[in-house]
Amino acid sequence: MRPTLALLLALAATPALAGPSRVEQAAMLRDAALAASDALPLLTDLTTRVGQRLAATPAEARGREWAKAAMKAAGLVNIREEPFTMPVWERGAESAEIIGTGQKLAIAALGTSGATPPEGITAEVVYFADYAALQEAAPGSLAGKIAFIDHRMMRAQDGSSYGTNGVVRRAGPALAAQKGAVATMIRSLGTDYHRNPHTGSTSFPTGQAPTPAVALALPDAELLARRLAAGPVTVKLISTPRSNPNGQSANVSGDIPGSGDEIIVIGGHLDSWDIGQGVIDDGAGMAITLSAAKAIKASGLKPRRTIRVVFWGAEEEGIYGGRAYAEAHKTDRIVLAAESDFGADRVYRLSSKVADTGLPLIAEMQRVLAPLGIAPTRDNTAGGGADVAPLGALGSGILELEQDGSRYFDLHHTPDDTLDKVDRAQIDQNVAAWTAAVWLAASDDRPLRTK
Amino acid sequence: MRPTLALLLALAATPALAGPSRVEQAAMLRDAALAASDALPLLTDLTTRVGQRLAATPAEARGREWAKAAMKAAGLVNIREEPFTMPVWERGAESAEIIGTGQKLAIAALGTSGATPPEGITAEVVYFADYAALQEAAPGSLAGKIAFIDHRMMRAQDGSSYGTNGVVRRAGPALAAQKGAVATMIRSLGTDYHRNPHTGSTSFPTGQAPTPAVALALPDAELLARRLAAGPVTVKLISTPRSNPNGQSANVSGDIPGSGDEIIVIGGHLDSWDIGQGVIDDGAGMAITLSAAKAIKASGLKPRRTIRVVFWGAEEEGIYGGRAYAEAHKTDRIVLAAESDFGADRVYRLSSKVADTGLPLIAEMQRVLAPLGIAPTRDNTAGGGADVAPLGALGSGILELEQDGSRYFDLHHTPDDTLDKVDRAQIDQNVAAWTAAVWLAASDDRPLRTK
Repeated sequence: MRPTLALLLALAATPALAGPSRVEQAAMLRDAALAASDALPLLTDLTTRVGQRLAATPAEARGREWAKAAMKAAGLVNIREEPFTMPVWERGAESAEIIGTGQKLAIAALGTSGATPPEGITAEVVYFADYAALQEAAPGSLAGKIAFIDHRMMRAQDGSSYGTNGVVRRAGPALAAQKGAVATMIRSLGTDYHRNPHTGSTSFPTGQAPTPAVALALPDAELLARRLAAGPVTVKLISTPRSNPNGQSANVSGDIPGSGDEIIVIGGHLDSWDIGQGVIDDGAGMAITLSAAKAIKASGLKPRRTIRVVFWGAEEEGIYGGRAYAEAHKTDRIVLAAESDFGADRVYRLSSKVADTGLPLIAEMQRVLAPLGIAPTRDNTAGGGADVAPLGALGSGILELEQDGSRYFDLHHTPDDTLDKVDRAQIDQNVAAWTAAVWLAASDDRPLRTK
Repeated sequence: MRPTLALLLALAATPALAGPSRVEQAAMLRDAALAASDALPLLTDLTTRVGQRLAATPAEARGREWAKAAMKAAGLVNIREEPFTMPVWERGAESAEIIGTGQKLAIAALGTSGATPPEGITAEVVYFADYAALQEAAPGSLAGKIAFIDHRMMRAQDGSSYGTNGVVRRAGPALAAQKGAVATMIRSLGTDYHRNPHTGSTSFPTGQAPTPAVALALPDAELLARRLAAGPVTVKLISTPRSNPNGQSANVSGDIPGSGDEIIVIGGHLDSWDIGQGVIDDGAGMAITLSAAKAIKASGLKPRRTIRVVFWGAEEEGIYGGRAYAEAHKTDRIVLAAESDFGADRVYRLSSKVADTGLPLIAEMQRVLAPLGIAPTRDNTAGGGADVAPLGALGSGILELEQDGSRYFDLHHTPDDTLDKVDRAQIDQNVAAWTAAVWLAASDDRPLRTK
């Protein structure tokens, strides 16, 4: 018979007895979370009461209030906000239609993109099969035109297709504008066939004025491509976002204090895009990591290393929170950092980037997570989530609990990022993995930092 | 070895030879359509070049121009428009948000519903679990409130759950208004969990002024229900449709003339809702039936009964076209009528309502359609599609090629009614069934009318 969580709690309360080993403790925490965790109730509460949390807006601030209350209820201490400034970008009116038939196209403006006049712009559309085709367009050849960048992003479990195609969204609008385009439309970086445009940030080099840039839902991108194959197409585009350079966001954190001065940072990002409800991106990461910390706290076990839950602000529009956090805490002894930011489906792989002295700890984690179906890391070169990469660059060890992203880009940055997409068994598997892995690291003292 | 279509064509061109039997001819037509039909190319062309076709609007008129050209290209003759008048209803601005958090709700106004002021209305929401709960509400109890009717519609292959829940949309808004409600929101009549509100017509009794009425996408209905379970909720609703009693629509038809005076009517409806692209509802029905007629025409076979393809106008907002057609043709010898209006997925069942003298013909059809996986009818009481039911009431025999509707209400009346939802093998199976069944009926002379 395996030790149960009740036994664990009893043993934790009677430290004089020889209790279960660290690995046994981790397994007990794992199994308890797998049976039921607080993640889905936390996520339900956040997304029902707060909803979307666009960076540097009152909605994100409401999210911080929720976060502090939830951390307090979880038993965390030293709960605090760490503010930082950033530009704030907010969506305006947006619509697009094909002149002649009036066919409406489902669009969403890209973050940091510029505005059309309120009455919109009407221009001929020029087709580019991919980013490379746009690169080949002659200077000035897009004067007065709307560039349309098509491209194909396939489903990939590890999300790698997002990396491959990301340049279309990040750099396509600026490049098209440099060649004269008055606006840019891209096929969404997405894998679903719903009328779901996928928003996300684009960027313009310093000194280049942002131009209007929107993503088309896949059915709309394919309709437009069919129309363009049959002859010239003119589109009327309205997109009127506003920008303000003086926005404010903040990171929120809370601790389970350890007996030493070393810190483990775990968390997710608090902000979301505006057109969904901030559930899988990244309410899920917040709920998974807070639920893991809550379970460790509730177990009565006392960590050697401080377990700190951080909810970063303003990830979506340029990792403002992650960079501010690393800068503010660069002298802290953060030995390990890990972010959950890839939805709510199961973890299938564990990877890391730690000092060689930490590899035996990673091997312990692999052993405890294997019953969850989680495969060993292939190497020790993990990059970490967007918000912890800056900590990794400063020498923190990095842990990644890689989630199955097969359906992540059906939902990512779309109106469809809603609560019904979360499967309870899958999110609880995440909490089981995080609880066990974090406890193993927090109860250990083998060096993990890479510099 | 089975006779091939090439052989059929050769035999049709040499009538002096003893050719294949009617059943063999039908089987050859069936197999040729199953290998490849014109349905998907026709549907692609219609929905790429025309798109949505809201009743009594210029978009529907563009659809009629497309239809006449496509009928001509298919070799039909006597191509004509038969106009009729009807009220025209057009969507305006629409948005809804929860006061306090500003959470946006994905909505679509219901056809024939009334308008809010341009600035919208802001009112408390009252929850009703279903239509029966609304019926039980006291007179005047909804004064100044927005009624929200929740209900659950499950997936059903035969679409029966739409019938069960239809009263919520058709009659809920009028009933809520009678009890004082300033507006009504319903959970969409749908089975998908996307941010897809399902529009559709509601109705108000003569003399009752229409009030604003909208459908919520399922994720939004469930969010609203969760919020209401936690306490009072106030919503700001904007919906500004316009109505004009003097609209004009028309039916379009074309013939393969028979040697006698009897007529078989097949077709689909030409209009669609405005928020999708009119693909599965009902471009598919148009493409399937026209493609079937085109294949029969191209075979060189000469029918005894005239095969008439009818594309009815204005089905969605009250079966205006179907009723006008039956009235205009009540003295014609229409012996059989059949409509395709349940998407583009496979036919799984054949049903009928014909005179007893026609039952041997239905049995022949069953035998020829069985290799397509189509099961026998259970009885002889089919009602027919919406547009042919008025013909059935006048005595025409009715044939139904019932399609698998398991995913129909994921798409029906939503923005997601787009071309990518159509599977080529499935739509070609429909054409195979229609081609064979129509040829068997058109080459026969057994009486079919029920009165």
